[in-house]
Amino acid sequence: MAASGDALAAWRRQLGHERVLDDPVTLDRYAASTSSWSTRPLAILRPHDTAEVAQLVHVARAHRVPLYPISTGRNWGYGDACALADGHAIVDLSAMNRILEANAELAYVVIEPGVTQRQLSQYLREHELPLWMDCTGAGPDTSLMGNILERGFGHSPYGNRFQSVAGMELVLADGEIVHTGFGHYPSSVNRRVYPYGVGPYVDGLFTQSNMGIVTSLGLWLMPRTQALNHFLCMVREHEDIAPVIDALRPLRLDGTLRSILHIGNDLRVISGGTTFPRELAGGRVPLPEEVRQQLRTASGVGAWTVSGALYGSDAQVAAARRAVRRALAPTRAHVQLLDERKLDLAAAAARLLKGTGFGKRLAAKVALGRSLFEMNRGIPNGRFLAGAYWRRRGGLPPGFPADANPALDRCGMLWVSPVPPMRGEDLLRVHALAEPIFRRHGFDLFVTFSMINERALGGVLTVAYDAEDAAEVQRARTCYREIFDTMMATGYIPYRVGLQSMADLDSGNDGYWRMVGKIKAALDPANIIAPGRYSARQHPCA
Amino acid sequence: MAASGDALAAWRRQLGHERVLDDPVTLDRYAASTSSWSTRPLAILRPHDTAEVAQLVHVARAHRVPLYPISTGRNWGYGDACALADGHAIVDLSAMNRILEANAELAYVVIEPGVTQRQLSQYLREHELPLWMDCTGAGPDTSLMGNILERGFGHSPYGNRFQSVAGMELVLADGEIVHTGFGHYPSSVNRRVYPYGVGPYVDGLFTQSNMGIVTSLGLWLMPRTQALNHFLCMVREHEDIAPVIDALRPLRLDGTLRSILHIGNDLRVISGGTTFPRELAGGRVPLPEEVRQQLRTASGVGAWTVSGALYGSDAQVAAARRAVRRALAPTRAHVQLLDERKLDLAAAAARLLKGTGFGKRLAAKVALGRSLFEMNRGIPNGRFLAGAYWRRRGGLPPGFPADANPALDRCGMLWVSPVPPMRGEDLLRVHALAEPIFRRHGFDLFVTFSMINERALGGVLTVAYDAEDAAEVQRARTCYREIFDTMMATGYIPYRVGLQSMADLDSGNDGYWRMVGKIKAALDPANIIAPGRYSARQHPCA
Repeated sequence: MAASGDALAAWRRQLGHERVLDDPVTLDRYAASTSSWSTRPLAILRPHDTAEVAQLVHVARAHRVPLYPISTGRNWGYGDACALADGHAIVDLSAMNRILEANAELAYVVIEPGVTQRQLSQYLREHELPLWMDCTGAGPDTSLMGNILERGFGHSPYGNRFQSVAGMELVLADGEIVHTGFGHYPSSVNRRVYPYGVGPYVDGLFTQSNMGIVTSLGLWLMPRTQALNHFLCMVREHEDIAPVIDALRPLRLDGTLRSILHIGNDLRVISGGTTFPRELAGGRVPLPEEVRQQLRTASGVGAWTVSGALYGSDAQVAAARRAVRRALAPTRAHVQLLDERKLDLAAAAARLLKGTGFGKRLAAKVALGRSLFEMNRGIPNGRFLAGAYWRRRGGLPPGFPADANPALDRCGMLWVSPVPPMRGEDLLRVHALAEPIFRRHGFDLFVTFSMINERALGGVLTVAYDAEDAAEVQRARTCYREIFDTMMATGYIPYRVGLQSMADLDSGNDGYWRMVGKIKAALDPANIIAPGRYSARQHPCA
Repeated sequence: MAASGDALAAWRRQLGHERVLDDPVTLDRYAASTSSWSTRPLAILRPHDTAEVAQLVHVARAHRVPLYPISTGRNWGYGDACALADGHAIVDLSAMNRILEANAELAYVVIEPGVTQRQLSQYLREHELPLWMDCTGAGPDTSLMGNILERGFGHSPYGNRFQSVAGMELVLADGEIVHTGFGHYPSSVNRRVYPYGVGPYVDGLFTQSNMGIVTSLGLWLMPRTQALNHFLCMVREHEDIAPVIDALRPLRLDGTLRSILHIGNDLRVISGGTTFPRELAGGRVPLPEEVRQQLRTASGVGAWTVSGALYGSDAQVAAARRAVRRALAPTRAHVQLLDERKLDLAAAAARLLKGTGFGKRLAAKVALGRSLFEMNRGIPNGRFLAGAYWRRRGGLPPGFPADANPALDRCGMLWVSPVPPMRGEDLLRVHALAEPIFRRHGFDLFVTFSMINERALGGVLTVAYDAEDAAEVQRARTCYREIFDTMMATGYIPYRVGLQSMADLDSGNDGYWRMVGKIKAALDPANIIAPGRYSARQHPCA
């Protein structure tokens, strides 16, 4: 306690009182979490630049107070802004939000951790740069870098985001500032065009890790394309999704489909428009089958919906449209190819039919279509966060999605992210493993499988729960653990985990984790930076 | 010396006498190098599997004898099979040459270090797998893994080879066997479809490095495509290449050109068919301008030739052909689009015209065209090694390219590999920096710039010298150093270096190399594995 008091005093001398916060209201705010494993920090530190980060690391080390760096702290469903244990000092990097460089010719920007999806998207439009950002559905106010360092994925051909990183600046636990790639050569003119540099390529070491604090990175952006189509494909029956995956895989493998397709179940789509219908369900959980069918019919969705974008020249997009139709012809999929001309027509029709039920449903579809096209162009939209509010007592907050913050809004949400090989049978197997567990614990299985690369699906299974019902919170935890353990046991290892599972990644007899532990000990012997984060061997406050 | 004697004895007990070689003839063979910085090993160890690698590492560590792992040792132009200093034990992994797994559906194989380009290529054809391997021009008997771990690049859409690695098995200096990606979870069914795994992504750490000995890796392969075209584009005058680069960059950036284009100067092309014409040159070096013009005319090449492949469906390739023609129309490039129907016609014409000069030139062009198409489909060809023999006394050996081995054939070759941003002006600048240095030292500048990703060129400047002329060897070293230093000073940092330059990568005040040194010390405190390799801070035999 004395040590942390001294550290706080030293940080206040460094950053000033207004940037070292430990009042209870602020601490509560940072402790808010969509997960039920919240931790309470010692204080919040708000550096303005890399030099300040290096200085505050020195203080942390001198006083042995653990730090927990966040970008904007919106790691929804995986721990939000929380450290692994109480009493860590949160290094909130959101004030470091400069776009340090933008290069239209070579199609990249250099960003700090606080740069949000909204900010970069607006910047590109305001400066009329012919570039599009890859975008996630996590909302406009989330950090790009925070997601990239967690190896998140987006929607566009640049959706395998880590592959778009070219050069990091980072601060190590001894305060050393390191530039990766070619960036540590002051003369280098090639630091943003070739990520690997010369010598060991280390960038991966700073993703899903606690090896350092990344303070900026080069981010490749995709050039605007001549044409953009969106494609939606629906199957009515559950099992019918398997042949669709197998039909699309060759197109993903051969580069016809270069963007990340998302495959959502009925509830994933339905939850975008409504929250859990308590009255219809009559107190029953999970959602009774007849109500689910009712909602499906009302929103016109089938068991599964595939959603993806086709990018390229007019000729390329036309060829891709034909290839998609041809591939899916033998399946039971209903394919819809959207272009913006079609959307305009539908919008006009919806205006004509205003006041009718059909007109209203059409207008809603047009609005969704517009959001999808915007997303494909890197314009973020908060509407895709709606799923987080599924079991929330008050439903969607007024004004949603403006200022949506699932953690502060007391949403309950835990994510499990198994990675099945991109095969229909694997998708069905993961679903079959998870579904009975969700049902047994009274939860509705929301799931999206995304074609995160050419060979794998990134599954996201959501346990959405009522954070204000203590019994339901308990059930959610149990449900989460069972699903996590089942996926680990069956070999569908997740690509990313929440704080609560980091220690469980290491069996205790795993050469990989032993090696990671050695590297961590070499770079951060006092275990100052995010102890326990993707590093089971270095327990917090050791 | 006592220590190394004890180590040899222990290795002989382990591997048997026939797999621990230290007779002078064998040592000479392994010391042979295209570079003039050759080193002589203590012995050659030939393990057969990972367990044996782990055991021999234990012995090395116990006796403090440095190891130097090679795959097949054909690291031409960068040090071949040589360790950084004399007296290291070469761990020759070429006998570990199993293809451990092949999966046509998910398009990957799992290979050991000894698997050569020829072997995998033949395997895919013999098993009629609908997959193509990415291929380099380094010849059929080179190791795939060796090149990948050096972050080499090939020709196809999978030419950025490190991006095709999914899961490594490796042996650390303490003998621990580690599986990266998801592979360290015994249950995992997803280890070959998603490279990053969960937690820090460490694979990059084992490329261009001495952190461990990689004993197998998952390698993604490209699915065979319906259509394949080759495109050649030539400019007569030197400066005319700049607008060509700038015209092609947007097509590379937007995915129209997904494979790695190679841009070679006149000598790079000419040296594929002939060696330095000593008589024509009349004892003068470098090649006199009038002789160079004569050779250009004779072989019908311009100052620069761009060579690349278009892959995809018929519709995609047709769209790409049109896009390439449209983009290059405003430049002075002469564009030729080859398909195999055209090649067949040309072959028929060549047969008709047999005996005439024109027929002979046409037949040679057809043969080159066939080799290019084979290369694009992952069938390696030794002919692209011819450049290494440019200044060799005896010219091309009889039977070339069968069994070509530039090191044993006493070729002299040093490579410098600067990475310019993908812009015409940068290409011209690198050329303008290098050309006078080559000329001043009497060498002919061969150069290829390859579009190794969407934003960078990988330059390969070759100093080809007569290894049997001591004065020329000295000039080659000096020339090499000047070029290397110039590229470093002007910020065109190389993507890869030969043994002779590894220590020069570190200024002595470089946070990146300090960090790499710490990681090395944590994983290999006795500095047993490849001391000094991409690690200036850990000198050999420390």
